[in-house]
Amino acid sequence: MRFIIQRDQLLASVQDVSKAISSRTAIPILTGMKIEASPNGITLTGSDSDISIESFIPQESDGNVYVEEIKPGSIVLQARYFSEIVRKLPEQTVEIEADANLKVIIRSGKAEFNLNGQSAEEYPQLPKLQTDDSFTMPIDLLKGMIKQTVFAVSAMETRPILTGVSVTLQGGSLHFTATDSHRLASRTIPVEASNVEFANVVIPGKSLNELYKTLDDSEETVEISVTNNQVLFQTKHLNFLSRLLDGNYPETSRLIPEQSKTVIQAKTKDLIHTIDRASLLAKEERNNVVRLTTLDNNQLEITSNSPEIGRVSEEVSVQSLEGEELKISFSAKYMLDALKAMEVEDVKINFTGAMRPFIIQPVNDDQILQLILPVRTY
Amino acid sequence: MRFIIQRDQLLASVQDVSKAISSRTAIPILTGMKIEASPNGITLTGSDSDISIESFIPQESDGNVYVEEIKPGSIVLQARYFSEIVRKLPEQTVEIEADANLKVIIRSGKAEFNLNGQSAEEYPQLPKLQTDDSFTMPIDLLKGMIKQTVFAVSAMETRPILTGVSVTLQGGSLHFTATDSHRLASRTIPVEASNVEFANVVIPGKSLNELYKTLDDSEETVEISVTNNQVLFQTKHLNFLSRLLDGNYPETSRLIPEQSKTVIQAKTKDLIHTIDRASLLAKEERNNVVRLTTLDNNQLEITSNSPEIGRVSEEVSVQSLEGEELKISFSAKYMLDALKAMEVEDVKINFTGAMRPFIIQPVNDDQILQLILPVRTY
Repeated sequence: MRFIIQRDQLLASVQDVSKAISSRTAIPILTGMKIEASPNGITLTGSDSDISIESFIPQESDGNVYVEEIKPGSIVLQARYFSEIVRKLPEQTVEIEADANLKVIIRSGKAEFNLNGQSAEEYPQLPKLQTDDSFTMPIDLLKGMIKQTVFAVSAMETRPILTGVSVTLQGGSLHFTATDSHRLASRTIPVEASNVEFANVVIPGKSLNELYKTLDDSEETVEISVTNNQVLFQTKHLNFLSRLLDGNYPETSRLIPEQSKTVIQAKTKDLIHTIDRASLLAKEERNNVVRLTTLDNNQLEITSNSPEIGRVSEEVSVQSLEGEELKISFSAKYMLDALKAMEVEDVKINFTGAMRPFIIQPVNDDQILQLILPVRTY
Repeated sequence: MRFIIQRDQLLASVQDVSKAISSRTAIPILTGMKIEASPNGITLTGSDSDISIESFIPQESDGNVYVEEIKPGSIVLQARYFSEIVRKLPEQTVEIEADANLKVIIRSGKAEFNLNGQSAEEYPQLPKLQTDDSFTMPIDLLKGMIKQTVFAVSAMETRPILTGVSVTLQGGSLHFTATDSHRLASRTIPVEASNVEFANVVIPGKSLNELYKTLDDSEETVEISVTNNQVLFQTKHLNFLSRLLDGNYPETSRLIPEQSKTVIQAKTKDLIHTIDRASLLAKEERNNVVRLTTLDNNQLEITSNSPEIGRVSEEVSVQSLEGEELKISFSAKYMLDALKAMEVEDVKINFTGAMRPFIIQPVNDDQILQLILPVRTY
């Protein structure tokens, strides 16, 4: 194997692929990055067996030549050293050469690195997904859906299925739901007509967080294919493959109250700042609980009390406040997560009493829904 | 105690003073920040008993009123909560009030924090230093001297005296030296005539690092006073007090070779980049050793070898190369620390053989000196 490549293109690919590589893996060769040279270009692969990322650098694209003098072949290099080396190479072009004894030479300018490679034949084969059953969506919409839901997955392995985001595509609607059983975040969007349908496919939250960081905002669309146990996200030069979680995702729709007794509409920013301040003294407490009390004249009072440290209270004006009087306590962290994830100026909150879950949504947009269970205080 | 203060001024002072406060302290009240209101303004104090920082916010300065409605008094507040609160207050002005029962109220806009304070009488008295024996120097020069020496102090407590920087003021010269016994960094500057003289006063490296971060580049001069066991750095609104280290600092001048056998002059940047690359494969090794070999035609070769991972070599052109041929091995980290600390374009390196310490200095400036002991390789 031998080729000469532009360092910037190589570096971008190495950084993408590195996101899938963990130094703590049970399969030693997965600490390496696979490099494959073919006449069309160079493919880099990284995997931690849950997530696999493949990045392709074409020999040329739009008239720009990225790779020259390609002699096909493949090798696996220690990912940590390889990415550090690529990042610090002195010149714009890099020559990479591997011989039959798995000795690799990386040359750039006057610098020469001699590395010990491993055979690409020992690297696990990635499953090939059929992409006939795929659908396409804009990257920014997918990233938005991830951001608005993935924070609500469970961090605890006690119910592993809740560490993932449940994805359903039915009747032209794509639906994401995440819950840790104390709160729930969901988002629905319409997608272009496609023949694909599936329900409650559960993608690990960790995979979606990595996908979010890997997807390049400068590209437009991503193609998504789902099988029994894998999901593949494809962009022009990137394949992102994740395993799915096994098990049945709980039915969550019955959690969502259908009527409400107290309705508040407010500036998101005002609520975020007030609740953030009220939670300052509660930071170290396990529950980080704040209390919301409705007052007259479109005012709320947000309070928090930590006997040892002190007490905070603040009044905040809202745009409207209708229905029954209310005193309710909830986790400041869950509330801030939900408010920040929505990224809208104005929100409405529907309460059905102090002991019932409440719902936060953008004003005039039912496709985003955040639900929080209150905390019982005595 | 009561006063109304501008949040921005309060925040800047709180952040300065917080640098001296540690949550891990044997004296519980030192996790707090002392607030003292006097008719002239507000003084904040923080201390971890090694370092103490006092910041003064004048009632007014240059016609700007910073504090109003002052009712003198003092209180101690938990530093962690107090700085978080100040940082997140909603309005530009803040009212702080403490009653006889040590209850403190902080008000800003509609937010009200009720905190439990502690009595300022329980806060340790800072030693008052006589400042008759002081000298004054520009802040940027002091910061430069700290930066060029403090990285070379020992991180090990086996010889505590080496964890400090030795400071000598004699004959109009101020001299800083730091060494961990494998390398040495020193810097001398002339200071304005003063009657103060002292030798081998040892300031903890940690104190100098905090001082570096605390000193404000927008102020011009700092006044320095030294006693037997304390040093005080004073600027217009800040007192920074550090204890000194006990013990005799070793005589270091005999370490510095007086003649040289091989002299190299080179661009600092070229050396930094080449040695940085050569050290990439050695990162995890305990010694992180690179080897320098002189070649013909003003060329050096820098190499490094890690049997399991691979080998790097790179040639680098230097401006001049005089004297005996040389092969020498040294710590890449020490070399990079020294080259980066000097902040000059061109350096000269004086070697006296493969087994002797060598010296790195700016070209045409003997006031900065970096010395490194080579590593024996077999």
